[in-house]
Amino acid sequence: MSLVQVIPLGGVGEIGKNCTVVRQGDDMVVIDCGLSFPTEEMLGVDIVIPDFTYLLENKDKIRGIFLTHAHEDHVGALPYLLPEIPGCPIYASEFTHALIRNKLDERIGLKGLNLKEYKAGDIVQCGGLSVEPVRITHSIPESFCMAVRTAHGIVFFTGDFKFDFTPVDGKLAQITRIGEIGEEGVVVLLSDSTNVDRPGWGPSEREASKGIRQVMLSAPGRVLLTTFASNIHRMQQLLDMAAETGRKVAVVGRRMEQNLEICERMNYIKVPKNTLIRLDELKLYPDSQVAILTTGSQGEPMSALVQMSKGEYGRLQIKQGDTLIYSARPIPGNEGAIWRTINRLFRQGANVVYESPTPIHVSGHAYREELKMMINLTRPYYIAPVHGEPRHQHLYNEMSRAMGIPDHRIFTLVDGIPLNIDEKSASFGDPVPFGRVLVDTGGTPGVTDDVLRDRNNIARDGIVVLSLVLDIDKGEVVGEPVLQARGFHAPDGTLDHAFDVMWDNLRSISREDLKDAGKIRHLVTDVVKRDIHKRTKMRPLVLPTIVEV
Amino acid sequence: MSLVQVIPLGGVGEIGKNCTVVRQGDDMVVIDCGLSFPTEEMLGVDIVIPDFTYLLENKDKIRGIFLTHAHEDHVGALPYLLPEIPGCPIYASEFTHALIRNKLDERIGLKGLNLKEYKAGDIVQCGGLSVEPVRITHSIPESFCMAVRTAHGIVFFTGDFKFDFTPVDGKLAQITRIGEIGEEGVVVLLSDSTNVDRPGWGPSEREASKGIRQVMLSAPGRVLLTTFASNIHRMQQLLDMAAETGRKVAVVGRRMEQNLEICERMNYIKVPKNTLIRLDELKLYPDSQVAILTTGSQGEPMSALVQMSKGEYGRLQIKQGDTLIYSARPIPGNEGAIWRTINRLFRQGANVVYESPTPIHVSGHAYREELKMMINLTRPYYIAPVHGEPRHQHLYNEMSRAMGIPDHRIFTLVDGIPLNIDEKSASFGDPVPFGRVLVDTGGTPGVTDDVLRDRNNIARDGIVVLSLVLDIDKGEVVGEPVLQARGFHAPDGTLDHAFDVMWDNLRSISREDLKDAGKIRHLVTDVVKRDIHKRTKMRPLVLPTIVEV
Repeated sequence: MSLVQVIPLGGVGEIGKNCTVVRQGDDMVVIDCGLSFPTEEMLGVDIVIPDFTYLLENKDKIRGIFLTHAHEDHVGALPYLLPEIPGCPIYASEFTHALIRNKLDERIGLKGLNLKEYKAGDIVQCGGLSVEPVRITHSIPESFCMAVRTAHGIVFFTGDFKFDFTPVDGKLAQITRIGEIGEEGVVVLLSDSTNVDRPGWGPSEREASKGIRQVMLSAPGRVLLTTFASNIHRMQQLLDMAAETGRKVAVVGRRMEQNLEICERMNYIKVPKNTLIRLDELKLYPDSQVAILTTGSQGEPMSALVQMSKGEYGRLQIKQGDTLIYSARPIPGNEGAIWRTINRLFRQGANVVYESPTPIHVSGHAYREELKMMINLTRPYYIAPVHGEPRHQHLYNEMSRAMGIPDHRIFTLVDGIPLNIDEKSASFGDPVPFGRVLVDTGGTPGVTDDVLRDRNNIARDGIVVLSLVLDIDKGEVVGEPVLQARGFHAPDGTLDHAFDVMWDNLRSISREDLKDAGKIRHLVTDVVKRDIHKRTKMRPLVLPTIVEV
Repeated sequence: MSLVQVIPLGGVGEIGKNCTVVRQGDDMVVIDCGLSFPTEEMLGVDIVIPDFTYLLENKDKIRGIFLTHAHEDHVGALPYLLPEIPGCPIYASEFTHALIRNKLDERIGLKGLNLKEYKAGDIVQCGGLSVEPVRITHSIPESFCMAVRTAHGIVFFTGDFKFDFTPVDGKLAQITRIGEIGEEGVVVLLSDSTNVDRPGWGPSEREASKGIRQVMLSAPGRVLLTTFASNIHRMQQLLDMAAETGRKVAVVGRRMEQNLEICERMNYIKVPKNTLIRLDELKLYPDSQVAILTTGSQGEPMSALVQMSKGEYGRLQIKQGDTLIYSARPIPGNEGAIWRTINRLFRQGANVVYESPTPIHVSGHAYREELKMMINLTRPYYIAPVHGEPRHQHLYNEMSRAMGIPDHRIFTLVDGIPLNIDEKSASFGDPVPFGRVLVDTGGTPGVTDDVLRDRNNIARDGIVVLSLVLDIDKGEVVGEPVLQARGFHAPDGTLDHAFDVMWDNLRSISREDLKDAGKIRHLVTDVVKRDIHKRTKMRPLVLPTIVEV
């Protein structure tokens, strides 16, 4: 029987850019196609996507891309992959489709797209493989686990999940179906592990209503709430609590307005009667009778909330007595921007509720006991934590061992290394092409390490540009060289001194040597670098330009 | 009677660079002289210090600099101020002196320094003012509150504090003395507010022993512990717990070794017998009988821990079975670097304990009830939270109001704005020169906004350098211009295209115009900028160099 391979192209040992291939012979299915966010040293990088080389090398084998849910870390890289594999079917729930269709249209247009809807219980045949989505609870509607049937049993992806017994939309996880799949035989479980360091069982999303309600009741003026624009359940709760406490709701932020509109139209959000108003109608109501839903929970510079915090948002101003509910969790790396935003709001006289004994935010990911529940239901032979950094993988493996799974059945996956499964055993295979691709702020992928190194270097110490004109035939310097700096901070006279030293050096060079532009380039760069470093301890990037006449 | 002014030059509305002046007529005392750390957009900035213009304009009035304790955010800017005011007395405890003497010696030498020791209970007369340090508990030995007696009552600085009834060094806060000062009459309380959002009463520093002990007992191999090098109490606890559980202790990291040596010599740390070993002696003991104290708790790139996590530290390697206790709190902005370090340690087979039901770290700052206790003891007329961001100030003020202090006696201080106190009232005065001064990685202060703007611009989109040789007399371009880029990410041919467009433009220019270097500079910059932006949506910094021959 043929080999089954589980090949993570992103999303293991990290949080973000989820993309995994299940391959059996000539059949491949791709589970998710997400992006991640740059770390602070990736200067000028907007988003990070997986390297798709392996997929492109095998495009004839891809039977479909299957999306678990509509979060960016699971769907955000689609605009970069789809143009390369036109016509490839993309399977997603009706809801996920609606959300991504919108974004794909903005980015790459809808031509040639082969969007296919599926729903829980459907079984999509993909050559020798088949894929079955199973409904699960998470912080966005219509989230799926994914059961991929292979020759050696079921490869079961939990996707992002929690077990929420009182979900806001009332749609319960299909726990029994997961159990049945477990009985049928899960050869490997790929489980969300991001909250493995939180003991117990996480609170239901519905718990957030309590904190929101409390603020609505006690706030003297307007209540603003910020969360991810994709957090549809949270939007529903804000609307419900506002209606219950006699407040009208206005929405600011393009993505939030769009999502609300889509969800209302598709009935994923039920807007209580006479609750939603336009932004310009806010002034018709007393402050104590309005609430505002806004983007900006990650301190994004262009978001409505950040602009408001700076007093630069034309459509809405913060005022004394406003209360903001910070109903989100900072994505690591955004803390600085978020706190600065919150502090600015306080300075403008607003109150910000960012921590509260009654929850105003709950996580969408399973806590430790929920993760155990998933293992119990699926009873996998092999187990591998995904959607987690090494620390989460480590703790998840420790937990698995404590549940009696022996070491040789636990795998710490690494991007690009296939997990090869045959009838007898599982082991790591030969690496496939993989990696991270950095997309710049203009949307062009492929920012290189060289470019980043230069950016980091210049960002730290600046750049010194040196222009020199050489008459190569005569072997002489023409005119006076120019030394200029940008982003360079040094005592007055530093450049002048470097210039003098360089000039002295140039004058002592023979005509013969002056005919060798390469040699001169090297020499002047070196002289300028050394002199600046000696005097300032700084190492700006020194960029020589030699114009030959 | 003369006016009393409390003038914050740093440390309010922010956490860091604490520096406040109390002025009465011609007498000024300075409380603390600290640094803060750069935010992520301050590229190439090492530390941030207060603008000392006001102090330098009034140097003849400064009667002394009084240090509350030896943390960098209270003493770290001294090397930048002291050379400007030679001979100015610096008052500090024997312990604080020992720690700062070391660093000052490295940075500016000890010549001309006028270090004066004081201890709790001393009263230092400073013209019409006097200063009395009062012992308080914090995460470093010999921390003081500061009572500054003025014509209108006592200006009371809490310094950084918590009320710890079981301090590691056994030295209790002088609570009664604070109460006496309260009875004498505190006109204004300047209180630490950083943990005002934590309810209740914080745990004693000694609680950290429990978690450390537990790890020592259960870890299969070596135990490493990382914390701030200044956290002397934590070092003591590690040594004690190691001795108790039969482990020897080695220390890595220069600053930690230095501090341990100073503290042992001065008897601020009591090393249990036969506990401390040299790093090269580690191999003489089984892994289960050793512990290692290391720097690097903030993910500093050059620290021992970060180097070890990368396998690049020559003196010590991480191995399977090691356990690291992360016994610190991330300074906001460092989260990314810290998690990357921790993840690398996991990848190397170490276990990292970073969260634990039994505490492995406790905060050095007062929680809400402790802050109230301080208000109760000092019974101030005016009150002003310091050492806090606007969010902390807001919550502290709310708390003060709940304790019955009326609004007009609560002040939200702002850097550079004096609080003017006379016999009848207090109000904000005219601003004094103030601000933040950015110090680059070479140690030179004064990185300008222009430099930062260029760095941010280049860091995002790179730089394009254009060299052009003009014969000004003849009005013609000499040789061929050169277009070069660094840190610039764009599709192949982008520069070539920009070059062609520029060249076309140059050729259509009259001889007369070519004699005007300024005009040409403007033109070519503009042409290159536009063309690149049109084709890539990027805005690299375009730097033209015109060499005139």
